[in-house]
Amino acid sequence: MDNFTFYSPTFFDFGREAELHVAELIRRFGGSKVLIHYGGGSIKKSGLYDRVIGCLDEEGVPYVELGGVKPNPRSGLVYQGIELCRKEGVDFILAVGGGSAIDSAKAIAAGSVYDGDFLDFYHGRADVEKALPVGTILTIAAAGSEGSPNTVITDEKTLIKKGASGDVLRPKFSILNPELTCTLPPYQTAAGATDIMIHVCERYFSNTSEVEITDRLCEGILKTVIYETPRILENPNHYEARANLMWAGMLAHNNVCGVGREQDWASHNIEHELSAIYDVTHGAGLAVVAPLWMRHVLKKNPGKLVDFATRVWEIPLDETNPEATALQGIEAFEAFLKSIGMPGSFEEIGAKKEDIERMVDKLFRNSDTQGNYVKLTREDVIEIYKSAVKGS
Amino acid sequence: MDNFTFYSPTFFDFGREAELHVAELIRRFGGSKVLIHYGGGSIKKSGLYDRVIGCLDEEGVPYVELGGVKPNPRSGLVYQGIELCRKEGVDFILAVGGGSAIDSAKAIAAGSVYDGDFLDFYHGRADVEKALPVGTILTIAAAGSEGSPNTVITDEKTLIKKGASGDVLRPKFSILNPELTCTLPPYQTAAGATDIMIHVCERYFSNTSEVEITDRLCEGILKTVIYETPRILENPNHYEARANLMWAGMLAHNNVCGVGREQDWASHNIEHELSAIYDVTHGAGLAVVAPLWMRHVLKKNPGKLVDFATRVWEIPLDETNPEATALQGIEAFEAFLKSIGMPGSFEEIGAKKEDIERMVDKLFRNSDTQGNYVKLTREDVIEIYKSAVKGS
Repeated sequence: MDNFTFYSPTFFDFGREAELHVAELIRRFGGSKVLIHYGGGSIKKSGLYDRVIGCLDEEGVPYVELGGVKPNPRSGLVYQGIELCRKEGVDFILAVGGGSAIDSAKAIAAGSVYDGDFLDFYHGRADVEKALPVGTILTIAAAGSEGSPNTVITDEKTLIKKGASGDVLRPKFSILNPELTCTLPPYQTAAGATDIMIHVCERYFSNTSEVEITDRLCEGILKTVIYETPRILENPNHYEARANLMWAGMLAHNNVCGVGREQDWASHNIEHELSAIYDVTHGAGLAVVAPLWMRHVLKKNPGKLVDFATRVWEIPLDETNPEATALQGIEAFEAFLKSIGMPGSFEEIGAKKEDIERMVDKLFRNSDTQGNYVKLTREDVIEIYKSAVKGS
Repeated sequence: MDNFTFYSPTFFDFGREAELHVAELIRRFGGSKVLIHYGGGSIKKSGLYDRVIGCLDEEGVPYVELGGVKPNPRSGLVYQGIELCRKEGVDFILAVGGGSAIDSAKAIAAGSVYDGDFLDFYHGRADVEKALPVGTILTIAAAGSEGSPNTVITDEKTLIKKGASGDVLRPKFSILNPELTCTLPPYQTAAGATDIMIHVCERYFSNTSEVEITDRLCEGILKTVIYETPRILENPNHYEARANLMWAGMLAHNNVCGVGREQDWASHNIEHELSAIYDVTHGAGLAVVAPLWMRHVLKKNPGKLVDFATRVWEIPLDETNPEATALQGIEAFEAFLKSIGMPGSFEEIGAKKEDIERMVDKLFRNSDTQGNYVKLTREDVIEIYKSAVKGS
């Protein structure tokens, strides 16, 4: 086990009607004027928007608002948010929505109190050392941004999708009401579940030995997602299944299952190039990339893939041929993803073979390799992308 | 799953030589004058005391100190600590040791800024609403107090052992260096491992259904302890095994594996009466009580005991007789406890049959039942205590 620090100071308020505590929580964590940041009409249609506004009005918490966050959130809206916060003297940002709204809120939070261009944080030109406090009301179990220090933004000029991180970006509070996720369509639900699984996998596939405790947590979260997702797809209003998936989504990414070990993150980086160009749902892009990444690294480093097969998918170990066991694990994962309606090829997400060179150029613009479990070269990634093209 | 809140804002600094960051962490969390609170000579013998003092001196952090914390910490020393803090203008308390030193430090932290008797918190006469900040350097993987809001103190006048709780008692930081636990004798190591397991069990044995995610975390922590403890007893300097056990100990009690569910805590309460009178190591007392509690509740509510057998101890389910499977799980647990040198009877911990009535009187002084998984009456607890007497 490697040395580590772990700090997850977010206050989580989880359960039915938890959103009604929002004004009280904003006050508790020092907010006196709020920017409400959200996506499109879904929170208005569901009535959530009205409940939040009603709660703030009732408690006399002043606010301004900025909607319009799109999946794979863009830099343009962040600049607007920063300007608005400065102009209006906002001191607290409330994100209402999924990972995109939260990531965009974090970018505004850091950018509002920074003299330079907020994209400096995303291009590695500055560290996030201060930010306005952020609170969240989560509506999708997926990105884990509600408990993480991370934010991913797409630079509109270059279409480069980049992450930034900093403990000050961890939300002060996050409100998780599973009921709010019940209206989510099956495809978005499944893409969210896939995102959660890959957040765990990027930590699970590690060369650090002797990390039993985090291995067991990773497996526990994966098994929960595998159990609950089909139950939700069968019955979208299944509160209990939604609740378990929602909490699993937080645990998958606040790093409690990732401490003390080298992590990978190649699948995420490879996927980010896809969703930056095609605006594919991140989880759906991961459903294409991650199993192909597994197939690719299997030959070079089968160890953890054998554990993945036996401990997560409960496939009996073939001691004479552990690699065959590992392959069965990948096949089980692929079958699961297909069963929940996730894509498995470029064609299914509208990606084009002709763009591979361009994506690889962008991916390797600042580094010679990707990932850690197996360090992937440019050629490796080309091979992974190509294997996603049907008939390849 | 029940509604819940979860808040674990402690900063964990984990790994080799982490204690050398202590002065920096005290400063970061606002300390300007420190009370160092610890037990006996072991931290002096090991050199830890000198390293801590050296670090504070080097960084110019002023301190006073109070040693002498005993296992099952007593109210007398807490009063001394409160007086010292007030007299010296202490604004930060650093506990160096195990759960006893930390629990005593939390009591001093709350008592120093409270006008009444600090025992009010423990007797349910007042809520802990403020406290001096506490930091810890942990030397034993056991109590989980390094990440929990809890503290247990024995009132010296009455020998009543009582707990108090409050989020302000969660340490600001906890330093966990597994190397510091390598000198711990086998008996203390095993008692700590038992304490960790029962912290999980008190949460696992719940009537709340549909809590897959926390069930899987509980099982993961239990399996880690079962795997690592014998490796430590075989090789006390096994850093990796010590590291996994140490982090498991934190996770077992910061409540990440207990949210959203009714918990039990009968075994702890039944044990507290033993350790209050006989000063037996808490984990060793639990090793006597917990399996007998399991045997007792098996007849009334076998459900979770079947899961415990199949999922934790990997005993195949006998579908025609699940209770028999559950019993095999309890037997596996008892065999494990014996194998790590833990006691299984009153005789082995110096407890006396004649004291049973007195302990039960104290246990039920404020309540008619104990626990939730099965609500135990006075007669139930008498039966459990009696079953701990050999030849009974």
